[in-house]
Amino acid sequence: MSRPTALSPPTLRDVARHAGVSLGTASKALNRSGTLRQETRDRVRASATALGFRPNDLAQALHRGQSFTVGLISNDSFGRFTMPIMEGLESVLHEAGIALFMCNATDDPARERKHIDQLLGKRVDGFVFTGRRADRRPAPGLDLGGLPAIHVFSRSDLPGALCLLPDDEGGAALATRHLLSLGRRRIAHVSGPEDFEAVRLRRLGYEAALAAAGRPLDPALVHHGPWTEAWGREALARLFLLPHPPDAIVAGNDQIARGLLDGLRGRGVAVPGEVAVTGFDNWTVMTEAASPPLTSIDMNLRALGEQAGRLLIRMIGGESLSGTIRLPCTLVPRASTIPNP
Amino acid sequence: MSRPTALSPPTLRDVARHAGVSLGTASKALNRSGTLRQETRDRVRASATALGFRPNDLAQALHRGQSFTVGLISNDSFGRFTMPIMEGLESVLHEAGIALFMCNATDDPARERKHIDQLLGKRVDGFVFTGRRADRRPAPGLDLGGLPAIHVFSRSDLPGALCLLPDDEGGAALATRHLLSLGRRRIAHVSGPEDFEAVRLRRLGYEAALAAAGRPLDPALVHHGPWTEAWGREALARLFLLPHPPDAIVAGNDQIARGLLDGLRGRGVAVPGEVAVTGFDNWTVMTEAASPPLTSIDMNLRALGEQAGRLLIRMIGGESLSGTIRLPCTLVPRASTIPNP
Repeated sequence: MSRPTALSPPTLRDVARHAGVSLGTASKALNRSGTLRQETRDRVRASATALGFRPNDLAQALHRGQSFTVGLISNDSFGRFTMPIMEGLESVLHEAGIALFMCNATDDPARERKHIDQLLGKRVDGFVFTGRRADRRPAPGLDLGGLPAIHVFSRSDLPGALCLLPDDEGGAALATRHLLSLGRRRIAHVSGPEDFEAVRLRRLGYEAALAAAGRPLDPALVHHGPWTEAWGREALARLFLLPHPPDAIVAGNDQIARGLLDGLRGRGVAVPGEVAVTGFDNWTVMTEAASPPLTSIDMNLRALGEQAGRLLIRMIGGESLSGTIRLPCTLVPRASTIPNP
Repeated sequence: MSRPTALSPPTLRDVARHAGVSLGTASKALNRSGTLRQETRDRVRASATALGFRPNDLAQALHRGQSFTVGLISNDSFGRFTMPIMEGLESVLHEAGIALFMCNATDDPARERKHIDQLLGKRVDGFVFTGRRADRRPAPGLDLGGLPAIHVFSRSDLPGALCLLPDDEGGAALATRHLLSLGRRRIAHVSGPEDFEAVRLRRLGYEAALAAAGRPLDPALVHHGPWTEAWGREALARLFLLPHPPDAIVAGNDQIARGLLDGLRGRGVAVPGEVAVTGFDNWTVMTEAASPPLTSIDMNLRALGEQAGRLLIRMIGGESLSGTIRLPCTLVPRASTIPNP
């Protein structure tokens, strides 16, 4: 499987021969080490440029004990939550000259173990884990060879783990306060399955915002179901069986919100005139195509990925960081809550 | 930035010391080379296991001239077309013990160049390029150090390039034949912008299927616009201004198809009773949430990624492959064309 010689990149030996110096001198000249005449240094560098010589990261990695690579292990099958995180992470690491290995563990511990072993063999400098859901997951008891690791949009029970998550509670509170500020009095909450930590936190945020505004909490206005448009349509039908239907709805995600909008349109209810709706995720393919376009909460996943990159670089540099960090969400107003946003 | 000694992984030297043999003997024992007594081999391996020694891929890569890494350069910002391709690619490469570097070039040639240089420094064994659109792109004149490269869902004009694409023309023909087989007589085509190669190919497929069935082509039934739901709604309104509106529509993608379905529902037109609709992409979050659920064409992007992995492994092994390969699409029938799919 070795490459044909004709295609081999020039080696340090080729540079030395071209410059008419010893291998040791060529190495010193290119590594700016040892004492050499400036003229010799310049000649070696000119030869390196002429031959298109690239310093060999592998050799340098062996020498320095740092490979300038990081492994990202995703349990989201590279899904829509991982994408923006990956974008932010890659961007920050790339700036620091660090390349990113992508591994898809698909929630299979054996596959995850195999990936980790492969990456340890590649002498990565650190790990990033990301998940399909930002939930607490069982302590994986992972042997990471003592390397720094960070969990993004993913939880770990390992002592000393560093977890980076969006502030779900703050995000839902933001949506609820937005609707309160628009004068809405009966605000419903239609969300996803309660076994998701994010669902429980978003509900807490909704309840906290109502309480802070001195508004009563009506349990008949809170509904949980699957993360689908179909559930949004069904929940809307249920809410309109109430003697006093809501005048606003905080949805647990954008798909549910689209189902709610669909149901409202089907009943001829004006949005936002009679009922205002907010989504969650700010998944623009959903929010902008909705009619009317959907006000939503953005988890700023790209920023989460960037922050993960910066923290991991500090950990690779020797800092010890742990705990759970939650980054704020932002509200993106559109016509589902404000007539002319 | 070097790691504290306490965390350093055990070296071959540690294994040799533990087993009470020389460094050379330890190396031979673990590499299954040279002539050694079985008892010595076993003792060295037991020491390696006891110490948690992992063979150093970096050292092996230097020695063999192969790093068992591949670089993927995406111009899709890790978007929804790249994701399934990446999944398939990663899965095949992982089975072959090859790790995947992910780079996001975001259609910026300078950034792409920097990524390629970084990957050449890491001594990758090959490259995969993937794009936002499966379009012909300007010859980038890229110096890849003579390494094998494959373009997936992306085009290259470099002589000798290998491109792997979905069969857009065949996919649209499949959708059109499906509608013809259901007895539809006036089949419209509402698609994306004509400067996309995929749009032109899909239109060719639609026209070819009509011609093969001896059906006339009515230019009033063919419309191009943006890739959005809003365009689907607008195009539907235009089609219903015709004296003879269509009884079926082949949409250029799933978002346009959802807009068409929305428009049909708004006019009270029965789907599929009066008008049947097909999408393209089989983006399940769109197709399954549509009402009724949307029949669509699947480009099998995961299979495209898998095939790219297999072909790249053959190229790394020394085979010379070039040209354009188009993999077939499949039709996924749902209730927008068949009442009880």
